[in-house]
Amino acid sequence: MQDFSQLHAIFDRTKSYIDRFMGIIQPIIDAAQDEHTRLYYHHILEEEEQRMGRLQELVPHLETLSAEKKTDQLSDRELSQLLSDINLERFGLHNFREHLELSLYEFRDDETRQTLDGMREKTHTDYLQVKDIMAKLSERFSDVYTDLTDHDEGHDVHQVDHLKASANAPQGVASVITHTATPAPGKKGLTVGSLKGLK
Amino acid sequence: MQDFSQLHAIFDRTKSYIDRFMGIIQPIIDAAQDEHTRLYYHHILEEEEQRMGRLQELVPHLETLSAEKKTDQLSDRELSQLLSDINLERFGLHNFREHLELSLYEFRDDETRQTLDGMREKTHTDYLQVKDIMAKLSERFSDVYTDLTDHDEGHDVHQVDHLKASANAPQGVASVITHTATPAPGKKGLTVGSLKGLK
Repeated sequence: MQDFSQLHAIFDRTKSYIDRFMGIIQPIIDAAQDEHTRLYYHHILEEEEQRMGRLQELVPHLETLSAEKKTDQLSDRELSQLLSDINLERFGLHNFREHLELSLYEFRDDETRQTLDGMREKTHTDYLQVKDIMAKLSERFSDVYTDLTDHDEGHDVHQVDHLKASANAPQGVASVITHTATPAPGKKGLTVGSLKGLK
Repeated sequence: MQDFSQLHAIFDRTKSYIDRFMGIIQPIIDAAQDEHTRLYYHHILEEEEQRMGRLQELVPHLETLSAEKKTDQLSDRELSQLLSDINLERFGLHNFREHLELSLYEFRDDETRQTLDGMREKTHTDYLQVKDIMAKLSERFSDVYTDLTDHDEGHDVHQVDHLKASANAPQGVASVITHTATPAPGKKGLTVGSLKGLK
C-alpha cells in the first residue's frame, strides 16, 4: 500500500514539473526564428502534453487505491494493467529527465538553468525510486506481471553531467528572452506575451 | 475485423521503419563530437526503442486477433485495453513523424533525405489512418472506450514542409558520414564500423 502512496506522490510531483517546464519552453517556441528550433521544442512539449494526459488518469487512480486501500481487491487483469501503466510512466520520467537535460543547452541564465537542473535531479531520483518499486511489485505479483525490460543501461550519455557540459553552449533563441516575474515599478518587463512580437 | 488487419499492417510497417531509422541515426551518435548532439540523437533513438518494445507485443496480438477473428470474444475490459494500447501507438506514429522531420535537418545527402522523407510521408498517412480507425472503433465500442483526446491540432508547425525548410540547414555531424552500401572493388568504404575511430 505504501508503494502506491509513494507512486502517487512521485507522479503528482512530475505533473507540477511538466507545468513548470512548459512555462519555460513555450516562450522559446514563440520566439523561434527558424523551423528547426520551433519543431524541436514543439516536439518536446507535445510529448510532455501526451504524458500529462496519461498522468491525469493515473494520478487520481493511484490516489483512490492508496486512500481506500483497494489494491487487494484488484483482479489479476486490473493489477497487470496498473503495473503496465506505471511502467510506461517509468519510461516517461526517464524521457522527461532527458528533455530537461536537452533544454539546459538552450539557456544561459543561471536562474533558469538551476530550475531545470533541480527538476532534472529530482526527476532522476523519482525515476530510480519507481524502478525500485516496480522491481518489488513485479516480484510480488510475478504471476500477473513480469515485463521489466530496461532501455536505460549501458549508455555512457546517462553518466554525463549536462549542467557542466552545457555551460559553454552557444547562445540560442533563449538569449532574447528575459523572464521578468516582478518588473520594476513603471518599467514593463519583457514577458512571454510581449515576446510574441518577435516572431 | 478488417480494421484490426489494417492496424496490424500499419504497425508491422512502422516496426521495419524503426529498424531502418536506427540504422541511419546510430552512426550520428557514434560520430558525435559534443555531448549535446550525442544526447539529442540518443534520446530520439531511446524513445523509438521503447516504442519498438511496445510494438513487439502489440503486433503479434493484432495478428492473432485478425487471423482467428477473435475480437468478438474479447471482454469489455480487454477491448478497452486494446483500444488504449492502439491509441498510445497512434501518438507513437505522430512522434515518429517528428523524429523523422527533425532528422532531415541533420542530413545533406539526397539519398538519406529521400529515405527519411519517404518514411515521414508514409508514417503521416498511417497516422491519419489509425486516427480514422480509432474514431470508428471508439464510436462502435463507445460503452467501453471514449478517450480520443488529440494533441496534434492547431499547431502551425505540423503544416511546414520540413524537407524544404531543412534544405539549407548548416552541415551537422552527418557530413562526415558516408553510407557506402556497395564499395567500389578494392576500395574500402567508410562504414558505420569505421566511423567509430572518429570519436
